[in-house]
Parts: sequence; C-alpha cells; structure tokens
Amino acid sequence: MTYFLAAANEGGTRVLLALFLMLAAAKIMAELFERMRQPAVVGEILAGILIGPSLFRLVSPSEITNTLAEIGVIFLLFTVGLETKPASIFGVGKRALVVAILGVVTPFLAGWLLMKAYGGTGIEAMFIGTAMVATSVGITARVLSPMGVLNSLTSRIILGAAVIDDILGLMILAFVSSLASGPVNYLSLITTAVLAVVFTAFVVLIGAPVVKRVAPRIENLRGSQVLFISAITLCLGISVTAAYIGVAAIVGAFLAGMAFAEVAEERPTMHKQMSGVTEFLVPFFLVNIGMQLNLETFRDISVIVFAGWVTLIAVLTKLVGCGLGAWGLGWRRVGQVGMGMVPRGEVGIVVAQIGLGMAVINDSLYGAVLVMAVATTLIAPPFLRVLFTSEKGNKATA
Amino acid sequence: MTYFLAAANEGGTRVLLALFLMLAAAKIMAELFERMRQPAVVGEILAGILIGPSLFRLVSPSEITNTLAEIGVIFLLFTVGLETKPASIFGVGKRALVVAILGVVTPFLAGWLLMKAYGGTGIEAMFIGTAMVATSVGITARVLSPMGVLNSLTSRIILGAAVIDDILGLMILAFVSSLASGPVNYLSLITTAVLAVVFTAFVVLIGAPVVKRVAPRIENLRGSQVLFISAITLCLGISVTAAYIGVAAIVGAFLAGMAFAEVAEERPTMHKQMSGVTEFLVPFFLVNIGMQLNLETFRDISVIVFAGWVTLIAVLTKLVGCGLGAWGLGWRRVGQVGMGMVPRGEVGIVVAQIGLGMAVINDSLYGAVLVMAVATTLIAPPFLRVLFTSEKGNKATA
Repeated sequence: MTYFLAAANEGGTRVLLALFLMLAAAKIMAELFERMRQPAVVGEILAGILIGPSLFRLVSPSEITNTLAEIGVIFLLFTVGLETKPASIFGVGKRALVVAILGVVTPFLAGWLLMKAYGGTGIEAMFIGTAMVATSVGITARVLSPMGVLNSLTSRIILGAAVIDDILGLMILAFVSSLASGPVNYLSLITTAVLAVVFTAFVVLIGAPVVKRVAPRIENLRGSQVLFISAITLCLGISVTAAYIGVAAIVGAFLAGMAFAEVAEERPTMHKQMSGVTEFLVPFFLVNIGMQLNLETFRDISVIVFAGWVTLIAVLTKLVGCGLGAWGLGWRRVGQVGMGMVPRGEVGIVVAQIGLGMAVINDSLYGAVLVMAVATTLIAPPFLRVLFTSEKGNKATA
Repeated sequence: MTYFLAAANEGGTRVLLALFLMLAAAKIMAELFERMRQPAVVGEILAGILIGPSLFRLVSPSEITNTLAEIGVIFLLFTVGLETKPASIFGVGKRALVVAILGVVTPFLAGWLLMKAYGGTGIEAMFIGTAMVATSVGITARVLSPMGVLNSLTSRIILGAAVIDDILGLMILAFVSSLASGPVNYLSLITTAVLAVVFTAFVVLIGAPVVKRVAPRIENLRGSQVLFISAITLCLGISVTAAYIGVAAIVGAFLAGMAFAEVAEERPTMHKQMSGVTEFLVPFFLVNIGMQLNLETFRDISVIVFAGWVTLIAVLTKLVGCGLGAWGLGWRRVGQVGMGMVPRGEVGIVVAQIGLGMAVINDSLYGAVLVMAVATTLIAPPFLRVLFTSEKGNKATA
C-alpha cells in the first residue's frame, strides 16, 4: 500500500491536509450558521476567509483548490440543471431576457460612472463596469436548492436570465479586453455571440430528446453504474466545449443537466450518486471564494471606502435592474429576482484578475472588486432565504 | 456566470479538458474490456497508457491528476472499508500476518539477489528489493468489489495482510532510505513502527464503537446529508493523520471505512452517495497509473530484458511468498491470496521515484521498476477474476 506517501510524498500529504481542513472548516461553519438560521453558504465562504491567507493562514488558494472549486461549481450547476426541465425555462424566456439585459446594462453603466467620478481612466471605468455585470448563479442555486424552490417561477427566471447574462457578459468582457489591448475585432465578437447562442439552443433542443432516447441503451452496457458515469463525463465534455466556444463552463454544465433532467427524474439512484459528488465538491467552491479575500487590502482606509461604494452600487444595480425586469409579478417576486442576481462570487474575482493581469487596473482597484465580489455573495443568501420562505404557493406556477 | 473561464482562465479549461479525456478514455476502455470479458481496471490503466505521454500525448501526469488519483484511491479504500467489519479481519489476523511477512521477505530477497546478479551495488539492490515489496491493494479491491466477494475468506486475508504489509514496507523503505543518506536512526524507526501499530489498533478498536454511538447525534444536526459529509471529512482526516504518523493515507482510509462499516450498513443512501464519489474519482487513479509509463524506456533492449526479469520475479515471489502464507486452505485459495498481493501499482512507482530522487538508482533502473509496477498491475486482475469466479461458496465462511 502507499506508505510512501508518508515518507516521500510530503507534498501530497500536505494537499490532503489542505482538503481536509477546507472540508472540516466549511462543515463546522455551515452547522453554526444553520443554527443561527443563516444560510450555510455564508458560513462556508466565511470558513474560507478564516482558514485562508487573511486570518489563520492554514490553507491558501492553489491550482488544486481552484480546480476542485471549478469541478464543484460545475457539478453544482449540473445538479441544478437535472432539476430543471427545458420547457420550464422556455416558458419564462422573454421575461428572463429582459431581466438579463437590464441586469447587465444597469450595473455596467453605474460602475462606469462611479469609476469616472473617482477620476478613473476610460478603460479602468469599463473594467469596473464589467466586473459589476457578472452573476454567480451557483451561490443562488445553492441557497434555493435545499429550500426546494428551484421550480418556482422566479427561480426559473433567475436561471434563464443567468444563462443569457453569461452570454452578454462574455461579449462585454471580450469587447473591453480587446479595447484595452488594441483595435476591437468585431467580426470575432459577433462570431462568438452567434456560436454561443447556437450552442445553447443545440444542447437544450437536441440534447434532451437524444439523451432520453439513448439512456436505456447506455444502461444496457456492461459497466456498473454506467449511466451515472456517462452523465458525469458528458457534463465535463459539454462544459469544456462551452468554455472553448466562449460560454462559461458552468453554463455548459447547467445545459447538460437540463438535457438529462427527464432521464434523471425516473432514476433516484443516479440522483443520490450525483448528490454525493456535489456535496463533496461544492464546499471547495465556497471555501475557495473566501480564501481569495485578503484582509491586508483593508489597511488603506480609502480602499475600504471605495470598496464600500462598489459593493453598495453592485447590490443596488442588480436589485433595481433585474427587479425592473420582473416588474408586474408582485413585490416579493421582484425582490426575489433582483436579489437572486446579486452574488458576483468567483466571477467578479476572475474579471478583476484579468484586469490586473492586463495591467489595466491596479492593486487597490483589484482589492475593491474582490471585496465587492465576496461581499455581494455574503449579502444575498440571508435575504434570499427570507424572500423565498413560505414560498410554496409560488412553486411550479407559470 | 463564469464566462471568464473561456476568455481568461485557459489553464482552467485545459485542466477540465484533461479530466474529461481521462474519464472518457477510461470508461470507453472499461466497456471494451468488459465486452472481452476482461477486468475493467486493465482497460482503464491501458487508457492511461494510450492518452498519456507514451502514445497520443493528450494528457500528462500533473500535480492535479496526481491529487485526484490520490483522492480516488483513498475513497476506494474507504468504500472497501465500509464493506469490511473489523471482526471479520480480526478473525483472519494471524493468517494475514504470516501472508504479509512472507510476502514482504520473499520479494525483497529475490529483488536484492537479482540486482546483485546484475552487478548492482548494495544500495541499488536494496532499493530494487524495496520496490518489489509494496502491494497496491486498491487494484485488487477494485477487481473483487464488483464481483461481490469482498467478504470471502481470502479477500479478508488479503485486506488484513495489505495493512500489515504496509507497516512492514514502510519500515523497510525508511531503513533503506536512511541507509542511503547516512547512519540509520533505529530509535526513530522503532518509534514509527510502534506509532503505526497503536494508530491502527486505535482506529479499529475505538473507532467503530464511537462512530456507532455518535452517528445518530450527527444525523440530528441541521445540515443536509451531514452524516455522509462527516464520514468523508473524517476519512480525509484519518488518512492525513495516518500519513503523518507513517502509515499510508489509504490504510488510514481503509481503517476509517471499517469504523463506519456498521453504521453504513443500515443507511443505503450513504452507500449510494459514497459510490457516486468513488465511481467518479477512481478512474483518475487507474488512468494516472497508466500515464506514468513512458514507452520511450523500451528503446534500449537491455532495459526491456531487465524489466522482464524484474516483473517475472515480482509476480512469482508474491505468488509463492503470500501463497505459502495461505498454505492449507486449498490450491484455489492459495492462488487467490498470492495473486491478490501481486499488483504493485502506484506504490512501486513511488518507491522508484524516491530512489531516483535520492540518485540511488539511475534512469534505466527507474524505467524497469515502472514497467514492473504497471505490468504486475495489469497481469493480476484477469487471473483474480478467474480465480474468484463461482466463488459463492467461499463467501463469509471463516
């Protein structure tokens, strides 16, 4: 057996230790937060801040924690897709489109204005605007799924809007990045947009019937649990394809999940196996978000003030922009949709990293965006929980 | 959503692609091998050789694939432990001890003699001997588990012997490594041995009753699926502790599994969730073994011949040594025990890496050990399958 790991492969043991600490911290904090009637996600992200470079310095983000986090959020969205039938999203398609567009335009303009008011350059202002656009639907899904309200009208609007939001956000990021590095290639931008739309339509429209027809044949193969493994493999394959085409990997995972939704409904074992994988991996996604935050940034009071403004505007613009899109559905639903699109999570962080990498934004701006990304992710879940509580009447009504 | 992965995080997308290729290749090869009535493990290891640096060069081993492989084999052994009640191993304790000792001494001496016959130095001979000692019980477990014979007399002897084999192997590796780098610290060797034995006894004897008493309380906690997550977390924690103490991480995982065996028996959902995680991760363990092999080594004919000798002796010495330990149980069982201890897998590879790292063995010796490690892992499963087929009468008889 591998006793050598002890003597030799100390790096390997240290990685195992890091994973153990992340999982243990996440679950202890989740339990504490559940007891305080707060969402577990918030506890798990705070666990990341606690054990991360900011405070106890037990674990720091690495390629491995990032990879596990990414697989975690991919399977999370796949699981959410499994509970979402394509028809239920089509039913709210127009509404989701309006929510997405308003939820992209409003924060972008507000972020741009804020940065301009702070005396930023045009390109800085555009990057801050772009970082405000992204929605991290994984966080919202993680709050709504255990509440059993994923099939409510507003959940479906949020999920649909998140897919469109992604395609729009991608266009803006591509536009702003190319603006920062030279002349914009409009042809390539349009090609990507068309590809993204075609890919999404293809997976949803063709995927579901094909999976339904092929699933019984896959089950007849020799291997054990072959349908479950095929689903996971296909999920990874579609996620990778999505990423190469220019859609997010997690959008691919969500679409793949939708394609398997009908098949999975009749197979409880597959659901349980999938939940095993998801429950194991999602904590890495949440803890990793917390670990990104370095409280060192807060040494400079002006950064805190600026971060506060960015966060405030980030919350308000999604709330108002997306809420406007949900106009006419009643106040509670307007609030649900608006708040559901607030978390920026890992997405805002990645935009900030790109800006930093291109030397378009400096360390303080980067720090402020990071705070905004983590803060919006921490703020939304408690409100979501309140807004969706005793929401049974809303379930499955179109 | 994370559209940025596409534009920015190309490294992340490449990692996802690698994982997709590993999983897809493993499962296609597994299906082909099942159809040829060969063990799926062999197909999955060959998938690693196919997509690895030797042939198609689609994926090469990295820290990430190594980590996933390690988590995979840890959860594999944890799952095997879940199906193994402590009492069933104690019942075969003495027999397992004899099998382990003979199975360690025989290959070590034979490897040492072979290297000496080839004109090697004393330390080279000792390293080759040590590399022949290690058993990769994960491979055997992966063959036996789907056949439903994990509770047979011989399976229990193999599992018990593998734990003891590990502790003995660790001592030898520690001894040989310190011999190669200076005077041997006997005190530290003895301390490690005592710690290893105490740790093993503690987890098995104290762990099971404690888990049984605490499990209902854990289930009363707020979080969802909290017993499953606690089990996984504890598995990682005990594995890490084992590695730090000087026992293999996977031995820790196996012991942790045994501690949960009774609790898991009454909870089918936990079993299914665990199987989801294991089925997803084990292919990375198997494919990663195949990816370690670089067929470039075979350019030199003398390396092939030497590798052939090492492999032959590696197979024969475990077969004879461990088989002798099972003397008196009938020919079939002697063969089962002997063959069950043959695979060297990732363990032989790690020993070779240590030797190479200490500059105690050269590239050709390293290559030969690598071939031996992969070849023994490929040879054993088909024989195991034949030896254990129609083995129902052997099940659960002490």
